[in-house]
Amino acid sequence: MASDGGSPGAGKKRLLGVCEQSKGRMQLVADLLLLASDSRPVSSESVAALGDSFDQCRDAIIARSKGLSILSHDVQSQLNRGRFAEAADSLQELAELVMALTECSAHAAYLAAAETPGAQAALPGPVDRYKVTRCRQEVELSCGALRTAPLAELSPPLLLELSQNISRQLKALTDACAQASERAQERFAKEQFKLSVRCLSTSGTALLACVRELKACPGELSRARCVLFSGPLLQAVHALVGFATEPQFLGRAAVLGAEGKAVHTAILGGAMSVVSASVLLSQCLRDIAQHPESSSRMGEYRERLRSSACALQDGCNLLSQALRERASPRTLPPHTVK
Amino acid sequence: MASDGGSPGAGKKRLLGVCEQSKGRMQLVADLLLLASDSRPVSSESVAALGDSFDQCRDAIIARSKGLSILSHDVQSQLNRGRFAEAADSLQELAELVMALTECSAHAAYLAAAETPGAQAALPGPVDRYKVTRCRQEVELSCGALRTAPLAELSPPLLLELSQNISRQLKALTDACAQASERAQERFAKEQFKLSVRCLSTSGTALLACVRELKACPGELSRARCVLFSGPLLQAVHALVGFATEPQFLGRAAVLGAEGKAVHTAILGGAMSVVSASVLLSQCLRDIAQHPESSSRMGEYRERLRSSACALQDGCNLLSQALRERASPRTLPPHTVK
Repeated sequence: MASDGGSPGAGKKRLLGVCEQSKGRMQLVADLLLLASDSRPVSSESVAALGDSFDQCRDAIIARSKGLSILSHDVQSQLNRGRFAEAADSLQELAELVMALTECSAHAAYLAAAETPGAQAALPGPVDRYKVTRCRQEVELSCGALRTAPLAELSPPLLLELSQNISRQLKALTDACAQASERAQERFAKEQFKLSVRCLSTSGTALLACVRELKACPGELSRARCVLFSGPLLQAVHALVGFATEPQFLGRAAVLGAEGKAVHTAILGGAMSVVSASVLLSQCLRDIAQHPESSSRMGEYRERLRSSACALQDGCNLLSQALRERASPRTLPPHTVK
Repeated sequence: MASDGGSPGAGKKRLLGVCEQSKGRMQLVADLLLLASDSRPVSSESVAALGDSFDQCRDAIIARSKGLSILSHDVQSQLNRGRFAEAADSLQELAELVMALTECSAHAAYLAAAETPGAQAALPGPVDRYKVTRCRQEVELSCGALRTAPLAELSPPLLLELSQNISRQLKALTDACAQASERAQERFAKEQFKLSVRCLSTSGTALLACVRELKACPGELSRARCVLFSGPLLQAVHALVGFATEPQFLGRAAVLGAEGKAVHTAILGGAMSVVSASVLLSQCLRDIAQHPESSSRMGEYRERLRSSACALQDGCNLLSQALRERASPRTLPPHTVK
C-alpha cells in the first residue's frame, strides 16, 4: 500500500492497520516454519533467490539481516517526526524482510540438519502446507480490509491492490491444487482437488465483480455486497486448505539424529529471536499510534520502542552466530539500555 | 425421514431432532408470511393446489385444518405407547400441514384484502423472498444434520435423503436466480445473479462429492470433509439469498385501506394462533423426549401436551371463523382443561 501523505489522523489509522497485519503475518510464518519444528525445505520466492548450498544461504541471510537495523531506525525517526504513514511503509518493509529471513533461515536449518550423520531427507508430498496456509492468510487479510476499512479509505488504488492480491492468491492455490490433484493417489482426492478449485474460482469471480462495482459506484450498498460475497470465498479457501493439509498430502519431514536436531533447533531459535523482537516492535508502534501525543505514558511507549529495536539487533546477531557456528550461540550479554 | 423402528433411545433422538426442525420451519414460515404482515400473494405448491378465488381458498383451508386435530391425537397416542419414532413421523406431518395452511392462509388473506375498496394489488418483483428464504433454511437444516448427527445415524438412506434435499433446494434457487437475472434491470444485477448461481453450483458439487464418499467410506475423516465443504455451500446460499432479497428485487406489497388491513390482519391472526399452538406442541414433545419416563415432572409435561393440542384445536376454529367472517372472531371462551 503506497502512502498518500494525507492527514496525521489517516496516517495513524494506516499505521494501526499495518501494525496488526504485520504482526499477524510474522506470527503465522513463525508458527508454520519455526514453532512447528518440522524439518523440511522451504519453497518460497525468497529461498529461490538463494543458492542451493547451506553456505550460500548462510551468507545471504547474514547480509540481508543488516537491512533490518536500518529499517528499525527508519521507523523510529519517522515516528519522531510525526510521519505516521511513512513509518507504516517502513514497518511493512521490515515485516516483509523478517518473513523472508524466517523462510530462508528455516530452509538453511533444514540444509544444515540434513547434512548431519544419520539424517534422512524430507520427502515432499503433493501439497506444500506453508504455501497454501500463507495464501489463506493473505485472502483473509484482503477480505478483512474490504469488510472493516471505513468506506472513505477504500479508494480505487486500494481496491485495485486488494483485488490483485486476492487474484494472486487464488492463482497460487489453483496451481497448488492442480499439482496436488496430479500427484494424489486416490481417485476421490484427485477429483476433490479439482472440485475445490472450481468452487474457489467461482466464488472469487463473484467477489471480484462486487469489488469492481464498489470501485464504479462507491457506497455502503456496494460495500455490503463485497462483505456478503467475501463469505463464500473465505469458506471456499478454508475448505480447500483444510482438505489440502490433511496429513496424507504433506509428505514426510526429515528424520534427524541428536546432532541434526541440535543444529536445526539452534538456527530456528536464532530466527525466532528476530521474529519475537519484530512482533514486539509492531506492538509498541501500535500503542504509540493508538494514543495521543499528550498521553502521560508516551515516554514509556517510546522507551519500549527503542528497546525492542535493540532486541531486534540482538536477535540478528544471535541468528548470524547460530548460522556461523551451526550451534546455539552463547547467550549474549543483555543489551544495556542507553 | 422414514422411521426404521429401532430402539426407544434412537426413537427419542429422532423425535428430538424432528421437534427442533419442525419448530424452526414453522417459525420461519410464520415470520415471513404472518409477522412481516406484507400483503402479497404466496406462490407455493400448497397454494397452487387451491383454486384462484378467495372462496375456494377458504373452503380448502377449513377442510384441511380438520386434519390437524387427527394428527395431534396421533402424536399423543403414539407417545403414550412409547412409540417415539412414530410420534416423530406424525409431528413431521403435522408441521408440514401447518406450513401449508399458513401459506394458504397468507394467500387467502391477500385475496380478501385485495378485494376491499381502494386496495392496490401487489406488484411481483424479480425475486420471491419467501421461496428463496425457505430454500436457504432447508439447506441449513440438511447441512446441520451432516454436521451434528452421530456418525452411526448417518445411514445410506439418510445420506441419500439429505443429498436429495440439498439438490432440490439448489435447483429451486438456480431457477429463481435465472428468472431474476432475466427480469433485473441493471447490468450488474443481471450478471451477479449468474455468478451467484455458478458459485452455488460448484460448492454444491464439492459438498455432494464428500457426501457420496461418506456413504462409500463411512468414518470420521469422511464426515469431517462433509463439514468442511458444507461451509462454502452455506455461505454461497447465504450470499445468493442476501443479494436476491435486496428490496429492489422484491416488487411491492399491496397498498391497503383500513378495511383491507382489518381483513388481512384478522386472517393472519387466525393462522398465527394455529402456528403458536403447534410450536408449543413441539416444545412439549421435546421436553418429554428429553426426560426419562420416571421424571417427577412427566405428569406435568403430558398435561401441557394435552392442553397445547387443545390450543391447536382452538386455533383452527379461530382461523376458520376469521376466514368465514373476513374479520377477527369474537375471542373464544378459554378452553376448559379436562
